[in-house]
Amino acid sequence: MPFEPSPAAGEEQMTLRDFQVLIDRMYSRKDEARGIEGTFMWLMEEVGELAAALRDRERHSHADLAAEFADVLAWLATIANVAQVDLQQAVLAKYGDGCPGCGEMVCACGDEEKP
Amino acid sequence: MPFEPSPAAGEEQMTLRDFQVLIDRMYSRKDEARGIEGTFMWLMEEVGELAAALRDRERHSHADLAAEFADVLAWLATIANVAQVDLQQAVLAKYGDGCPGCGEMVCACGDEEKP
Repeated sequence: MPFEPSPAAGEEQMTLRDFQVLIDRMYSRKDEARGIEGTFMWLMEEVGELAAALRDRERHSHADLAAEFADVLAWLATIANVAQVDLQQAVLAKYGDGCPGCGEMVCACGDEEKP
Repeated sequence: MPFEPSPAAGEEQMTLRDFQVLIDRMYSRKDEARGIEGTFMWLMEEVGELAAALRDRERHSHADLAAEFADVLAWLATIANVAQVDLQQAVLAKYGDGCPGCGEMVCACGDEEKP
């Protein structure tokens, strides 16, 4: 089933840049003290919580599951901030012109191939 | 050091919604066959590659490091697609009005507290 954006999401949009800057403003003071390795530990904890929510979806509301995705994104943005990596630029460079494997906007790589 | 968006990124912007839809269009055919568990394995592989690039930054160019972030984001979006989670809505709901802990746009939670 193709992804269907939630109609309840309204019209508010957020660019990857805006998100990264929001997280930077919110947490940069702590991020610098924690460094990349310390921050990576937090990312892993959130990845674990996402795994738990995905594995046991009957006991998690859709909103709870969504919040786990948001947390993983936030910690990934935090690490990108500390590493001075521009996520939006990174995504546009790697995926903006098509699948990195075959170059097509709808991937035509063989099924045995990544990804 | 606060995050400095790359000037080389130019003016092209991408919303979280656009990114999720792009990845859905590019890979949804394969994603459905792989399912959430199979896709999570790919996410973990990419998280490992990101860890390697972060740990050994001297042997990775900044572009290579950025590409590893892009891959993690792409697999996270893929899982969100399969789970029908709207990443943009998730992020706005959790972080759009401030730190989930203290409610401030610049986090004022105590240092001993998450996050």
